[in-house]
Amino acid sequence: MLPQSAGPAYSIGVDLGGTNLRVAAIKEDGSMLEKVAEPISYDNGPEAVIATITDVVRAIASRIGNGSLCGVGIGVPGFINMETGTIIGSANLPGFEEFPVRDAIQQRLGTSIILENDANAAALGELWMGAGKNVKDLVLLTLGTGIGGGIVVDGKVLHGFLGMAGEFGHMTVFPDGNPCGCGNRGCLEKHASATAIAAMGRMMHFGRDTTSAHVAELALAGNERAKLVFESVGRALGIALANLINIFNFPLYLLTGGPVAAWDLFAPSMFNEIEQRSLIYARTGTRIERAQLGADAGLIGAAYLPFQNKGKCSQEFLPGGRGSIS
Amino acid sequence: MLPQSAGPAYSIGVDLGGTNLRVAAIKEDGSMLEKVAEPISYDNGPEAVIATITDVVRAIASRIGNGSLCGVGIGVPGFINMETGTIIGSANLPGFEEFPVRDAIQQRLGTSIILENDANAAALGELWMGAGKNVKDLVLLTLGTGIGGGIVVDGKVLHGFLGMAGEFGHMTVFPDGNPCGCGNRGCLEKHASATAIAAMGRMMHFGRDTTSAHVAELALAGNERAKLVFESVGRALGIALANLINIFNFPLYLLTGGPVAAWDLFAPSMFNEIEQRSLIYARTGTRIERAQLGADAGLIGAAYLPFQNKGKCSQEFLPGGRGSIS
Repeated sequence: MLPQSAGPAYSIGVDLGGTNLRVAAIKEDGSMLEKVAEPISYDNGPEAVIATITDVVRAIASRIGNGSLCGVGIGVPGFINMETGTIIGSANLPGFEEFPVRDAIQQRLGTSIILENDANAAALGELWMGAGKNVKDLVLLTLGTGIGGGIVVDGKVLHGFLGMAGEFGHMTVFPDGNPCGCGNRGCLEKHASATAIAAMGRMMHFGRDTTSAHVAELALAGNERAKLVFESVGRALGIALANLINIFNFPLYLLTGGPVAAWDLFAPSMFNEIEQRSLIYARTGTRIERAQLGADAGLIGAAYLPFQNKGKCSQEFLPGGRGSIS
Repeated sequence: MLPQSAGPAYSIGVDLGGTNLRVAAIKEDGSMLEKVAEPISYDNGPEAVIATITDVVRAIASRIGNGSLCGVGIGVPGFINMETGTIIGSANLPGFEEFPVRDAIQQRLGTSIILENDANAAALGELWMGAGKNVKDLVLLTLGTGIGGGIVVDGKVLHGFLGMAGEFGHMTVFPDGNPCGCGNRGCLEKHASATAIAAMGRMMHFGRDTTSAHVAELALAGNERAKLVFESVGRALGIALANLINIFNFPLYLLTGGPVAAWDLFAPSMFNEIEQRSLIYARTGTRIERAQLGADAGLIGAAYLPFQNKGKCSQEFLPGGRGSIS
């Protein structure tokens, strides 16, 4: 049993990654009290994963001791049913479908749990503590193996009716472009993800084991074919972003993920496309920027979720209330 | 001076059209008390337009007599600054920029005025009383001379930071497509508006005065070239809608405007594109339908605005309160 309500209010954010579980305790002003990473395996099913999560959260709360825990937010690589607190679709979490993830953790920890898609959590993290501090609406594009993202409207994540909003990777940017595993052609992620950059690198004969980082190195060293790859990436991103700007008229669009390190290589063709394809961009102060929190965005956004759900949170500050972790 | 608070609560919706001003008084349950249309001219500047609006609103309120007026909503063909109640951009309303439209009407009528973009008002109208009655989130595409639309999130219009959200007509659907006046190529409205259908009809040698309705007649009569025009329209709409579905994951997307009368001509290729380009569509119960309220959608949506702003509305029900029209 931990002391309650004596110290500062804080929440705990959890980022459920592919090989690591990352957990952070963060105060309401955004300052980080503690951050840990633990290896995690999904081979033994959801019960084992949940046990690992609860152990790490308990250990952190115990070390912090005299703080009031507001709740735990968990970023998950999958679609979430926000009402039931279950994961309704995830390639990375076998066996989790139909499992009552939220309620199981909630019961074990005795504090309120909020699940969120990891890219949505990252968008929220950037809004709270990163590049989006001064806005209420933003779109975040996450460039990685695939492309995903999150939409924040008036400070809150836009989920869509099945939690699937923000599937930017499957926007069509070239109607007759590269075929995608989803059945479409010309999906953004077939033209601008790290995977796509490596594939284009192979087509440029940079070797079968080439990576997006390697293609970027070559481009920076002046290789013309490698530069063409990033010009193409910028074009695809520019078409997608121009569409998003025309649709949302938000003040801020952020890019994050590995390929964003090559910003200077793709930004010129990206902005060129956007300027041609969006009058709103050309005539207003719309910002397109790199995200600022890197790999921590999802963790920080997850920790923000309990603070956002303020009504509930305050109740849990009561001494002897549900804020105890037993 | 009119009696107050004796009869049913109602609001007045105004639709500021190109040649007609349409005004309706609607009760909170959506039933229409009265609907009128007056010719309107924009040649004599905003003062004259505002005088016409206030005259018509006063006349309607006077005929209704013993009802409590909740407020007046006005759908305007332009971008609105919601904070200042001014029109910040409109090709159709010369002289209105910088004019305090909302406050001028508010002062004259003594009841609260809410301005809204006309396509946004139409989206809200469909949500309140049309095809979107059973949802909280929808996208409406308006096909006309150009293509516009509105986005409703959790029952409220999404405006964007400058009131420009929903510029669907300038989404790029074919990156190397038809050049558009906006500077882009392949804008949706260059491939799927009534103007685009007529232009394609001219290219198919249907005559210099051909219209989208004429092309539709030819297609229905079996003309193969006219059928190709609508197949192309469906393809463009399908690409745009698949992108919107992947972005929003909303339950409902609506189409309205003249070309929608040719639904059976473009729907097959439209749905074919959407099925190929959106896994979310293919795997969920996403609906794509014709809007139901036709040209009344904007008028009805405008009348809904004061009811939506409920807190204010109730205050005005107070006898002797600001609900009087003097």
